[in-house]
Amino acid sequence: MYSFRNDYGEGAHPRILEALIKTNLYQTSGYGEDEYTYKAIEILKAEMGNNSVDIHFISGGTQTNLLAISSFLKPYEAVIAAQTGHINVHETGAIEATGHKVLTTESEDGKLTPELILPIIKKHADEHMVKPGMVYISNSTELGTIYKKSELQALSEFCRKQSLILFLDGARLGCALCSSENDLSIKEIGDMTDCFYIGGTKNGALLGEAFVICKNDLKTDFRYNIKQRGALLAKGRVVGIQFLTLFEDGLFYELAAHANCMANKLKNGIEELGYKMASKSTTNQLFPIFSNEIIDKIREEYAFEEQIKIDESNTCIRFVTSWATEEKEVIKFLAFLKGISQNHRMNIKIKKEAYY
Amino acid sequence: MYSFRNDYGEGAHPRILEALIKTNLYQTSGYGEDEYTYKAIEILKAEMGNNSVDIHFISGGTQTNLLAISSFLKPYEAVIAAQTGHINVHETGAIEATGHKVLTTESEDGKLTPELILPIIKKHADEHMVKPGMVYISNSTELGTIYKKSELQALSEFCRKQSLILFLDGARLGCALCSSENDLSIKEIGDMTDCFYIGGTKNGALLGEAFVICKNDLKTDFRYNIKQRGALLAKGRVVGIQFLTLFEDGLFYELAAHANCMANKLKNGIEELGYKMASKSTTNQLFPIFSNEIIDKIREEYAFEEQIKIDESNTCIRFVTSWATEEKEVIKFLAFLKGISQNHRMNIKIKKEAYY
Amino acid sequence: MYSFRNDYGEGAHPRILEALIKTNLYQTSGYGEDEYTYKAIEILKAEMGNNSVDIHFISGGTQTNLLAISSFLKPYEAVIAAQTGHINVHETGAIEATGHKVLTTESEDGKLTPELILPIIKKHADEHMVKPGMVYISNSTELGTIYKKSELQALSEFCRKQSLILFLDGARLGCALCSSENDLSIKEIGDMTDCFYIGGTKNGALLGEAFVICKNDLKTDFRYNIKQRGALLAKGRVVGIQFLTLFEDGLFYELAAHANCMANKLKNGIEELGYKMASKSTTNQLFPIFSNEIIDKIREEYAFEEQIKIDESNTCIRFVTSWATEEKEVIKFLAFLKGISQNHRMNIKIKKEAYY
Amino acid sequence: MYSFRNDYGEGAHPRILEALIKTNLYQTSGYGEDEYTYKAIEILKAEMGNNSVDIHFISGGTQTNLLAISSFLKPYEAVIAAQTGHINVHETGAIEATGHKVLTTESEDGKLTPELILPIIKKHADEHMVKPGMVYISNSTELGTIYKKSELQALSEFCRKQSLILFLDGARLGCALCSSENDLSIKEIGDMTDCFYIGGTKNGALLGEAFVICKNDLKTDFRYNIKQRGALLAKGRVVGIQFLTLFEDGLFYELAAHANCMANKLKNGIEELGYKMASKSTTNQLFPIFSNEIIDKIREEYAFEEQIKIDESNTCIRFVTSWATEEKEVIKFLAFLKGISQNHRMNIKIKKEAYY
Repeated sequence: MYSFRNDYGEGAHPRILEALIKTNLYQTSGYGEDEYTYKAIEILKAEMGNNSVDIHFISGGTQTNLLAISSFLKPYEAVIAAQTGHINVHETGAIEATGHKVLTTESEDGKLTPELILPIIKKHADEHMVKPGMVYISNSTELGTIYKKSELQALSEFCRKQSLILFLDGARLGCALCSSENDLSIKEIGDMTDCFYIGGTKNGALLGEAFVICKNDLKTDFRYNIKQRGALLAKGRVVGIQFLTLFEDGLFYELAAHANCMANKLKNGIEELGYKMASKSTTNQLFPIFSNEIIDKIREEYAFEEQIKIDESNTCIRFVTSWATEEKEVIKFLAFLKGISQNHRMNIKIKKEAYY
Repeated sequence: MYSFRNDYGEGAHPRILEALIKTNLYQTSGYGEDEYTYKAIEILKAEMGNNSVDIHFISGGTQTNLLAISSFLKPYEAVIAAQTGHINVHETGAIEATGHKVLTTESEDGKLTPELILPIIKKHADEHMVKPGMVYISNSTELGTIYKKSELQALSEFCRKQSLILFLDGARLGCALCSSENDLSIKEIGDMTDCFYIGGTKNGALLGEAFVICKNDLKTDFRYNIKQRGALLAKGRVVGIQFLTLFEDGLFYELAAHANCMANKLKNGIEELGYKMASKSTTNQLFPIFSNEIIDKIREEYAFEEQIKIDESNTCIRFVTSWATEEKEVIKFLAFLKGISQNHRMNIKIKKEAYY
Repeated sequence: MYSFRNDYGEGAHPRILEALIKTNLYQTSGYGEDEYTYKAIEILKAEMGNNSVDIHFISGGTQTNLLAISSFLKPYEAVIAAQTGHINVHETGAIEATGHKVLTTESEDGKLTPELILPIIKKHADEHMVKPGMVYISNSTELGTIYKKSELQALSEFCRKQSLILFLDGARLGCALCSSENDLSIKEIGDMTDCFYIGGTKNGALLGEAFVICKNDLKTDFRYNIKQRGALLAKGRVVGIQFLTLFEDGLFYELAAHANCMANKLKNGIEELGYKMASKSTTNQLFPIFSNEIIDKIREEYAFEEQIKIDESNTCIRFVTSWATEEKEVIKFLAFLKGISQNHRMNIKIKKEAYY
Repeated sequence: MYSFRNDYGEGAHPRILEALIKTNLYQTSGYGEDEYTYKAIEILKAEMGNNSVDIHFISGGTQTNLLAISSFLKPYEAVIAAQTGHINVHETGAIEATGHKVLTTESEDGKLTPELILPIIKKHADEHMVKPGMVYISNSTELGTIYKKSELQALSEFCRKQSLILFLDGARLGCALCSSENDLSIKEIGDMTDCFYIGGTKNGALLGEAFVICKNDLKTDFRYNIKQRGALLAKGRVVGIQFLTLFEDGLFYELAAHANCMANKLKNGIEELGYKMASKSTTNQLFPIFSNEIIDKIREEYAFEEQIKIDESNTCIRFVTSWATEEKEVIKFLAFLKGISQNHRMNIKIKKEAYY
C-alpha cells in the first residue's frame, strides 16, 4: 500500500543522513551552542539577507508554536487564527495549556485578512475579554493555499498598526516558497512578520524547525523559554546539521519543488478525470472530492486522510506529496483512479459553504 | 581541546545511524504509530519481562520529566525531589511552568530515603499547603551515585504506603545498571516504581528517551499529554528505530559499560595522584577536587564543568565519560595531570557540608 | 440617571447586612470552617433534599467557573459551551489561563442540547485534538432563557452516557427557579448535574456563590483547589452568613421573584409600545430592540448595556432588573419610553440569524 | 474559649459595616468603577503623597500575591522569598500554579537582605535555570518582625541595581507601620518598592486588600489580569467602601495600633513570667515558647496555633491579636498563665537554628 497520507512518512533526505554521519564523532558543546548550529544560523541569515534576526532550532512544530505564543504574549492576551489553523484544531490544546485563548474566524481558503481580523479586535474592547495580541497564520495554509506578497503586506501593515505580533507558521514554508504562484521571498517574509519558522520535519529533515525572531523586542532571553518547555535538545547539533545541509546549496528548495511538482501532476491527472478539488491548493496538499464508492476503492490500495464530508455521497480527502514521493507512484495512482472511475458516473454537487 | 564536559558531546553510536539509513525510505505512519516503534516497544517489554507496561518515546529528558509530573499530579499536588535533583535546578522551572511545586530536601549523596521524605509529608498536612503526590528520584543521580536494590525497595514500599507516585528519572539509567555496585535489574525497577524512563540521549542515541508507565491508573490517554506538550514527534520512528537498535542485542548496555569503564580508569588514575572525589560515584560522572591552580592548567587543555567551590583555594569539578570516550584520551589526560601535579603540593581540606 | 445595567448595582439586601452586624463580634475559625458556614451548608442541603453533596462558598462567579473546570478536568480535556457562554466571552480567558480549551457551538437561545454537542464529540476523536470532558451550561442563560426539566434531563442523560461532567453556572439561578416557565427544582438540578453553583452576588448578596459538588468522584480535596486559586476567604463566614440569611426563610426566592416581576412588567410595557425582544427571556434580563434614535434618547436618562447591532438603524440593548429594582422606576421608564416613541415610526426588520 | 489564633476571627470594625449600610442602596457601576472606589483611591494616594501610583482593590491576600507575581514576571522568571514567606508555604502552591518557581533562602528573622539574595542571583546564571525576576518580602513578616527604613532602602537599591522587581506583601502592613520600632512611612514604602499591598482583611475589613503599583512599566492593563484570575468583584464597591472608611480619618492606624498594644501587653506579661519569645516581634504576632505541659493547659481554654517544636519538651506557639482583641481578655489570659505556671519549673534550652 502506497501512502499519500502526509509528508513525514519517510526518514530524511539521504544527504542529511550523510551529514550526520560525517560530523558524528566531532565533539561539540550541547544545547545548540555548537559550530554546526552556528554555521547553519549564518547560512540562514545570509539566505534571508538579514543579519539582525535571531534564529533558534526547535524539535517540532507544535513546540515552536506554543513557544512563540507563550513567550511573546502577556497572560491575558490571545492569538487570532483561522478556524482551520493548526493551533486551533490539531495540537490538543497546546496553546491553551500555556494559558492563552485562541480566537478564531472562519476563512474559506485558510488565510487571514485585515477584514477578517478587524471584527475580532473591535469585539474585544475591554478587560472583561481577552486582548488580542498576536495573529497566527500558516504559509502554506492547512488547505494548501499560499499568501501572495500583497496579501502578506496588507496583513503586516494592519498588524503593526494594531500592535499585533504577526507570527507565520512555516511548517510547509518550503512548498509555499516553491509554489508556482508564489511571489514572496524568504527575506520579505522576515521583513513582514515579527517571527516565523522554517519547517524541516515536513521537508526532508528527520526533525526540526528553524524559528526566526525578526522583531527586536521579542529576542531577549528566548533560550530560557526553549529550555523551560523542554524544547532545548541536548544534542542541538542534530537539528543544526540538518538545516546546514538543507540550506548550504539549495536542497531545501529542491525538495519542496519536487513535492509541489508531484502534487501538481497528481492534481492535473485527477482533474482530467473530471474530479473537483475543494481547495485551490498550489502546494503539496490536495483536497480532491470523490464519491464514497471511489474512496472505498482507493482505500484498498492507498493511504490518505479523510478531510470532510461534502454531502451524503461525496467526501473530500487529503493527498500529500513530499520530497520522497516517487513519480512512478503518481503515474500508477492516476492509472488506478482512471480504472476505478470508468464504472462510476460522477455527480458531485458541492455546497461551497460546507467545506469547512 | 578534548572534552570531558558531558555525555552528549558527540552524535550517535554508528550502528544507530546505520539503522536510520537502512530504514530511511520505508513509508510509515507518523507520531510513533509505526512498526519500528512497535517493535522497539516489544523488545523493551521483553527486556523488562513485563508485558503490561506502557511505553512512549519522548524526544528529551526535561520533556519526559515535565510530562510525567504534569500528567500524573492533580493541580494542587507537588513533587518531592532532592535539592540536587535535575528538575529542581537545571530545567528552568519546567515543572513549575506546568503548575506544580517542587518540594526539596537536602541529601548528601543525591539519593532520597523514606527518612528524608517523611518530614516533608508530615509538614504538609492541610489545604493551606501543597499536597505531596509524587517522589522524583534519578538513577544514577546527579552526583553519579546509584540506588541499591534494598534502597529502592524501601522507597517503593514507603511511597505505596503513603500513596505517592514513585518516578525514576533514568537519563543515565544505562550507567546505573552497568555500575559495578549495581544489584538492580530493569525488571525490578519496573516493579518498584510507578513510572520511569530509560535515557537514550546520554547513552548513544541522537535523541530520545523511553518513558515506561508501570502503574495501571497512570496509563489512560497519555498520548494526549505528549501531544499537548509538543513532545509527539511527527517522525516518531526516529526515536523508535534508535531504541530498537540499542536494545535488540544489548548495545545499550555495552555503551554504558564502556562509559563506566572509562570513568573508573579516570577515577583510579586521579586518586592515585592523591586527589579526592567529592562524591562516591560508581558511574560515568566524576567529581574530583583540585586546587584552583591545577584547574586553571586543566582548563587550557580540557573542557569540563565546575561543580562547586570547596573553599577559597579548591574547587570540585565534573568529568563525564560516555560511549564515545576514547581510552587513549583518558590515558593522555592522566599523564597530563601527573605532569602538572608534580609542581603542586596538595593540601585539600574539605568541609563535608559544603559540597552541595 | 437610573440604571438598568445589571443586577449588582446596589449593595446587599438589608437583611443580609443586618445578619453581618448581628454576628460581627463572635469569634470564629477562618477559611469557611465556622459555625455560620456550617449552618448555611446544612440549610442548603436541606433545601436540596440531599445530604450527600459537598458545598463550598466562593467569592465570585469567574472564580467558581475556573475552579470547577480546572479542578475536574485532566490537562488535555476541554469544556464545551455555547458561544454566548460567560466562560467563553466575558471572563478574559480565565479558563484558558488554567490550561483548558473552551469548545463552542452556536446556539440561538443560549442553551445547549445533545444535538448541538454531539458533532463536537464526534469531531474530537483522537489525541491530536483536545478531549471533551465537561459541558458548561448556565441557567438562566446569558440570554435570559431557562432550561425546562425535560431539556436538562436529556442533557444529563447524554452527558452521563458520554462520560462528560455536567456543570451548571447558576450566577442567576434564583431568577431561573422563579421564572414563570420553570418546572425544575433545586433538588432536581442537583440530581441531574455533577456540579453547579447558586449565585449570591447577582441575587442580593454583597458577594459570594455556593458551589455544590454532586458527583462523588469530584469531591476529594476540593479545598486545596480553592486555596490554590486564591478563592478561600480568610473570613469565610462573610459568605456563609449571607447564604444562611438567603436560605433560612426563603429570602433567596423572594428576591429573585421580585427581579423577575419587575422584568416582566418592563417587558410587557415595552412590547405594548410595539417593540420586539431579541430573546425569549422569562427572567431578569431583557433584550429589547430599538432604533438607534430611541436608544440615544434612552441613554440620556438611563444606564444599560448595548448587546448587539441588529442592522444599520436598530440595536438590541440589555435591561437587567434585580431585587433592588423599584416598581416606580419601571413605571417611570415606560412612561418615558412612550413619550419618546410617539415621534418615531418603527420599522424594524430583524434578521433572525443576526442576533448573536 | 477565647481565641488568639489569628487576626481574622471576627467580622469587620463596626464603622465599616455602618458605611456599607449607609451606601447600600445607591446604584453604582460594577467591577470597581464606582465613585466609592474612586474616592478610596484618591484618599490612599493622598495618604501616600503620591498621585502617580495605580491602586486596585483585590478580595484577598493570596490572590493579590499571585496576581502581582504572575502579571509582572516573564514565564521563565522566578520570585525570591524567605523560606518562611507566605507564598512559599501557606498558599498551596498558588504561585507555582501560575507557572513560576519560588526561590528561597533561610532567614532567621523572616526578612531578606541583599546579602541573602546575592548568592541566589549568582547561582542562577544561565538559561538552564530560572531567572530571578522579583523579590517578595512581607512587612510585618510572618515572624512579626518589621523592616527598618535603612533595611528597606538597602534592599530597594539592590533590587533596582539588579533589575529585580521589589514586591512587599502588606497583609499586616498596618501593624508594621504602627510598631513602636517603625521608622518607615507609607510614602517611603511606595518610593522604595515597585508594588505592595495594604492589607484590609487582617486589619478590620470584611475582606479586601489595596494593591499599589508604583513602577510605571507595571501598570499597563492590570485590570485584565485581575479579571482573568477571578479577582475582580462584581460589587467592587464592597472593598472600595471599606478602604474609604479605613483611611478617611485614620481608622486603619487606630486598629493596627490597638492590635499592637494588645500584643505588647501580652508579650510583657508572658516574659515577666519568665518565658521566652522565639522571634523579636514588635507587631501583633507573638511566638512564645512553652513547655508542652503548659501548652496542653492553655489549649483547654484558648485557641492558638502551634508554630514549631523547639525540642522534645518545648514548643513555640503563635498568638495573634487584632483590632478586636479585648484588653480584659489579655489580662485574663495572663492571670491564667500565671496560675498554671506556678507548678512548673521552666528549663528551656533553645537551639537557635531550630526555630525554622
